[in-house]
Amino acid sequence: MSKQTSPAIGAEQRIAPEGAALVTGPVTLINSFEVEPARDAAFRALWGETSRYFIARPGFVSLRLHRAVNDDAPYRWVNVAVWESEAAFRAAHGTAEFRTLVTAPGWSEFPSRPVLFEVDTEVG
Amino acid sequence: MSKQTSPAIGAEQRIAPEGAALVTGPVTLINSFEVEPARDAAFRALWGETSRYFIARPGFVSLRLHRAVNDDAPYRWVNVAVWESEAAFRAAHGTAEFRTLVTAPGWSEFPSRPVLFEVDTEVG
Repeated sequence: MSKQTSPAIGAEQRIAPEGAALVTGPVTLINSFEVEPARDAAFRALWGETSRYFIARPGFVSLRLHRAVNDDAPYRWVNVAVWESEAAFRAAHGTAEFRTLVTAPGWSEFPSRPVLFEVDTEVG
Repeated sequence: MSKQTSPAIGAEQRIAPEGAALVTGPVTLINSFEVEPARDAAFRALWGETSRYFIARPGFVSLRLHRAVNDDAPYRWVNVAVWESEAAFRAAHGTAEFRTLVTAPGWSEFPSRPVLFEVDTEVG
């Protein structure tokens, strides 16, 4: 099968939308990626490269990259990343290096849906 | 505004789909809920009641309930819950008590998308 060229995905589409006011406490990014099972290795390599950038930014706390157990999940890979504050999160997404990374040609085949959250309840 | 009656959502639609084989190590449920901002309190009360059931089941490890910072997110509430094994997770979803809880009339206005994951990468 020949691979179709995907439409370009801008850097803005790789940034979680803002709320009415900036969150001062910790925030959690839940970023869901569309990846065909056959393209897992390509996604994983690209994601690893991009995540190295984020891990080194001020205010980064932790991340967990998840892979769905069922291959027909609409978003098979999901990254859950905690940041100290929304300001730190936004700063990491406002650099030229971020834009260069997420507009790399390889990313166009992996649409994502980044959403920023606050933790309401924590147990265990 | 009068509220429309939503179609019934079966207990099956509240259970994350299975993969080709059962995962023996830890699994993470990421369950995304559609909730209108005006209905946050109703959702929160119902979710609290249902989560008490899960927290008491064998193999439950932890949960974090997240609320999106932007009101127009397609799924404004997301629960990330860790279980010791997929067997424990499935057992908790196979009881009569589970069916009774998730088919309670209040739940019909909050569609959800439960997906089960394994952790691929953990940092921090």
